Amino acid sequence: MDLVALVALEEIRRLKHRYLRCVDQKLWDELADTLTPDATTDYGTPSAGAPLRFTGREEVVDFMRSNLGPEIITVHQAGQPEIDVDGDAAVGTWALRDIVIAPGHRVVIEGAAFYEDRYRRCADGGWRIAHTGYQRTYEATFSLDDMPSYRLTANRWA
Amino acid sequence: MDLVALVALEEIRRLKHRYLRCVDQKLWDELADTLTPDATTDYGTPSAGAPLRFTGREEVVDFMRSNLGPEIITVHQAGQPEIDVDGDAAVGTWALRDIVIAPGHRVVIEGAAFYEDRYRRCADGGWRIAHTGYQRTYEATFSLDDMPSYRLTANRWA
Amino acid sequence: MDLVALVALEEIRRLKHRYLRCVDQKLWDELADTLTPDATTDYGTPSAGAPLRFTGREEVVDFMRSNLGPEIITVHQAGQPEIDVDGDAAVGTWALRDIVIAPGHRVVIEGAAFYEDRYRRCADGGWRIAHTGYQRTYEATFSLDDMPSYRLTANRWA
Repeated sequence: MDLVALVALEEIRRLKHRYLRCVDQKLWDELADTLTPDATTDYGTPSAGAPLRFTGREEVVDFMRSNLGPEIITVHQAGQPEIDVDGDAAVGTWALRDIVIAPGHRVVIEGAAFYEDRYRRCADGGWRIAHTGYQRTYEATFSLDDMPSYRLTANRWA
Repeated sequence: MDLVALVALEEIRRLKHRYLRCVDQKLWDELADTLTPDATTDYGTPSAGAPLRFTGREEVVDFMRSNLGPEIITVHQAGQPEIDVDGDAAVGTWALRDIVIAPGHRVVIEGAAFYEDRYRRCADGGWRIAHTGYQRTYEATFSLDDMPSYRLTANRWA
Repeated sequence: MDLVALVALEEIRRLKHRYLRCVDQKLWDELADTLTPDATTDYGTPSAGAPLRFTGREEVVDFMRSNLGPEIITVHQAGQPEIDVDGDAAVGTWALRDIVIAPGHRVVIEGAAFYEDRYRRCADGGWRIAHTGYQRTYEATFSLDDMPSYRLTANRWA
């Protein structure tokens, strides 16, 4: 591994970190810039009834903008990257734990998954996500009605 | 990005990791060494009634020493750093998930946040935290009375 | 820190990430390759009645193969590495949060710990785990009977 390879690893990690932050901070325009124009996604989340597959940056971002509004709190925490770089292309796996809280419905969804991503270095020199998808290790849902003492003491979107 | 920049990223990440470990392991003297003498903090945790703002390494550490004793279990897990280095100064964001358990009160507090930190390379060559603060994505609290079967099977501080 | 040291840090992080993924994906043969032949472990998990100490790659992997079958969902999320490299040997701490779900018994075990690992660069040039162990910050268990609405909506092993 040489300096060029180390820098690519840093840049790709940061790209993924930025993607995850933009999702949870609902920064949809900035999120778009982390994806290639032809990016594809495959979120294997069965709670939505079927895997969520999208083609193209706009479709991905439109889905999130429409479905992850201020009525939904999301937290995506991913780490443990294993990234292989080959010139201007790269693949990587990440371990994810996520939690989604819908206070209005008093519902919590939580789970874990492994991402399998592809990255591409674009003409402007920046790495972007060309494909992101994951397979769930598990996903669970429960109602806050089972926890009558549960109180949200902070909600960035309320 | 050159070798010097890569090394700075490694050193700043390790600094933050050490800070987080010292908080959860209640190593207050070692924690002090992760902060500049004039470090400031701004923990936006509303459960304490107001944001927790401190000025100076001693004030920060004194607060933790006084409020995070053996009756409190804390777990801070932060990752997804996005760090910009500019000479001997740097800024960085991190994603946090944390859990606090107060067994004596049968209370759990958990949540997520994004840190916004500033770092400074000191005269001894070591990086230290000049400012750390976060904005909550959410914070929630509940009583273990809602989960009668809940048992602590290990507690480092008991 | 020079290029050689930076590369070692990348390789050791990736080794640990691979180890953690292999545990949660139940890839026992690949897991074996992350360990030195004489690797030792010391998982300080009191819920099993006593610390889990094993000697030798085969004993470690046999235990996992026998005890973490498809009836158990495990999620190990570790980060915040603090790694010191000295030639072909290294030591490192990591912060862990883990969750174990046994759907058949309707039991959840969750907790946090700090790993203290030793790594060794082997004759083939690859780093492997020579020792891994952790001390629990806390561990808790509860029954899903306390949460009647809890439903697994995905389980990779079902």
